[in-house]
Amino acid sequence: MNQSSPRLWVNASLFDGLNGAAEPMAVAVKEGQIAWLKPMSELNAADQSGFECVDAKGALMTPGLVDCHTHLVFGGNRAGEFEARLEGASYEEIARAGGGIISTVRATRAASEDELFESARPRLQALMADGVTTVEIKSGYGLDVENELKMLRVARRLGRELPVRVVTTLLGAHALPPEYQSDADGYIELVCSRMIPAAAAEGLADAVDVFCENIAFSVEQCERVYAAARVHGLAIKGHTEQLSNLGGSAAAARAGALSVDHIEYLDEAGVKALAEAGTVATLLPGAFYMLRETRLPPIELLRRYRVPMALATDANPGTSPIFSLKLMLNMACTLFRLTPIEALRGVTAHGARALGLQAEVGRIAPGLQADFCLWDTTNPAELAYSVGLPRLTTRIVAGVEA
Amino acid sequence: MNQSSPRLWVNASLFDGLNGAAEPMAVAVKEGQIAWLKPMSELNAADQSGFECVDAKGALMTPGLVDCHTHLVFGGNRAGEFEARLEGASYEEIARAGGGIISTVRATRAASEDELFESARPRLQALMADGVTTVEIKSGYGLDVENELKMLRVARRLGRELPVRVVTTLLGAHALPPEYQSDADGYIELVCSRMIPAAAAEGLADAVDVFCENIAFSVEQCERVYAAARVHGLAIKGHTEQLSNLGGSAAAARAGALSVDHIEYLDEAGVKALAEAGTVATLLPGAFYMLRETRLPPIELLRRYRVPMALATDANPGTSPIFSLKLMLNMACTLFRLTPIEALRGVTAHGARALGLQAEVGRIAPGLQADFCLWDTTNPAELAYSVGLPRLTTRIVAGVEA
Ligand SMILES: [Zn+2]
Ligand SMILES: [Zn+2]
Repeated sequence: MNQSSPRLWVNASLFDGLNGAAEPMAVAVKEGQIAWLKPMSELNAADQSGFECVDAKGALMTPGLVDCHTHLVFGGNRAGEFEARLEGASYEEIARAGGGIISTVRATRAASEDELFESARPRLQALMADGVTTVEIKSGYGLDVENELKMLRVARRLGRELPVRVVTTLLGAHALPPEYQSDADGYIELVCSRMIPAAAAEGLADAVDVFCENIAFSVEQCERVYAAARVHGLAIKGHTEQLSNLGGSAAAARAGALSVDHIEYLDEAGVKALAEAGTVATLLPGAFYMLRETRLPPIELLRRYRVPMALATDANPGTSPIFSLKLMLNMACTLFRLTPIEALRGVTAHGARALGLQAEVGRIAPGLQADFCLWDTTNPAELAYSVGLPRLTTRIVAGVEA
Repeated sequence: MNQSSPRLWVNASLFDGLNGAAEPMAVAVKEGQIAWLKPMSELNAADQSGFECVDAKGALMTPGLVDCHTHLVFGGNRAGEFEARLEGASYEEIARAGGGIISTVRATRAASEDELFESARPRLQALMADGVTTVEIKSGYGLDVENELKMLRVARRLGRELPVRVVTTLLGAHALPPEYQSDADGYIELVCSRMIPAAAAEGLADAVDVFCENIAFSVEQCERVYAAARVHGLAIKGHTEQLSNLGGSAAAARAGALSVDHIEYLDEAGVKALAEAGTVATLLPGAFYMLRETRLPPIELLRRYRVPMALATDANPGTSPIFSLKLMLNMACTLFRLTPIEALRGVTAHGARALGLQAEVGRIAPGLQADFCLWDTTNPAELAYSVGLPRLTTRIVAGVEA
């Protein structure tokens, strides 16, 4: 199959990114895009002319999945730290032994671009095996200009060499690097005046992200980063209200953020701010699970104010070494009590919206890129209900089996 | 590759089912069995004569994984019930709508052997894709003689047609069938006097299991089942202390049970009874997770009394639709605070012991069946730390790639 042969997928049980279809559907693909779709009952012979027909035999068709929040590129491995903690080591002991995020920073700085690429590839392939066709990848373990750009270059290269769309995010303001231990403002100045301009000049970043938290950066510092991002035409995202309620989500929304992520401690004022700004709330149940958190994100408020909820892996070596977006569907339902359809929207239409890509991917609708998956079931809810099943039988990127 | 060509696997990072090796190892396989193993540093040219050499290049080798507690054979699907519950339906509403275990019983009774086989096959294949080479499969959704035997026949056929060892367990005493709603003793009489003898006569069951709980069967009723199992030479297992402390585990241990499973409510007297009888404690974190339980199994007591802990999926349509044993490694560590090595023992050496197969599978040791896996890592802890990674690169059953 190649992109230029028009294809008509018939007899699909469709979840289009927002809703399930009431009857079997036909989906027409031309030049890598969805051309049109209609119920099988309305399909006539003329519709089919010029198309090669593929029978989905009732299988569930969903948009290609969108993982809108990952930290896939990093050096080293924290399995040893995971083991030490379970064997009784305290956080202090692990920090003294050189563990924690700073060990990932050290290993990432020490790694070459090729090494980072080779170690990230199987992580991305694991996500792709689960149906992911669009993935966001953040920097944030370099924490200096050179190494942050190195991480972004690796992310871009992953998108060139593998059949998946990669969106990149500069997360320079992820943690304070050792060189700036007592000078957070100085580091934010570096991020704003050198890191963001350099990433923008090389076209390496689509967005800029921050970690707004007592243990990271203040709301005011994050706002300086947002201002610099805007100057350089980059989109804005925030890690906010994960461990406490600082008002970081509202500040990000005021700055026009595409999404705020984690948000376990978000309050009603914050939810209102998201609704007014059209900012997506991204839920990350993997980190919630791995950290054994008990504070739930404000799902009912997000529903009431109709804030779109995205859902992502947060794949990272410290708090969510989870390379399965499909598992997040089950965790969002089991731990956060999302409905299966809400969870599915989170990894399709709303995941795309969290990346500003809602006009391109995340739904099966005319004019969007033909990224979709076929699954060995007829029922969308089964994607969230089961773990390890149903099988992904076909993964299509821009109309091409990939 | 076929079973008759002797192979020598060299440069393996070994976890032998109980411990990790301190240096790279060579593992010799002859006629489907492990012939010998030794450190690479002690390997000489003579050792290698007559063997075809395979270089593991430092990759982690583990025993083939053992999933010692599953309900893989069942009719129907409970995704709709999962969805209804998340959309706000109460347990009563779901029961009135025909949901719950009884819906699985109805669908299982209505399904033919072929239908049950076809629906169970992808579930088993999902487990195998995770490295499982031995799996226990229970009946328990037929709840009459004919349908319980039908389930066991399907389980036996799965073991014949797929490259995996299947151990079967008759779980007639899983729930009260509709025909016996007010006559639990009458149903137990049916299990003891007709079901167990019939399963034994046809060679369909390796073991007999019960659900000992207030909502299922009393300790005294379970003891009648154990007595019947012993008469027919079948091993004994129990679902015990999952929701309350009835003393079911101690009763099972006194009856010589191979394992007691779930055991969140097990107390110190129960743990002592297991230790004295040599009964394995099987942990099922998937059901704990899906049911959002908070009561943890008594891990410290099990450690103190040196009770071997097995770990399994409990794969079933109601409380653990999870077809990944590797994920259980992470859940056992994250939710139950097992160490990675304890978790790994649970799906290898101790999983085999829970099936009475410790002399045949579950370890890489001379004389045992050559069932093993190679993983794209060098560190056993990474199997528990990561989800979705590391990749299983090679799966060997009785010396043959499968
Ligand atoms: Zn993150
Ligand atoms: Zn069970």
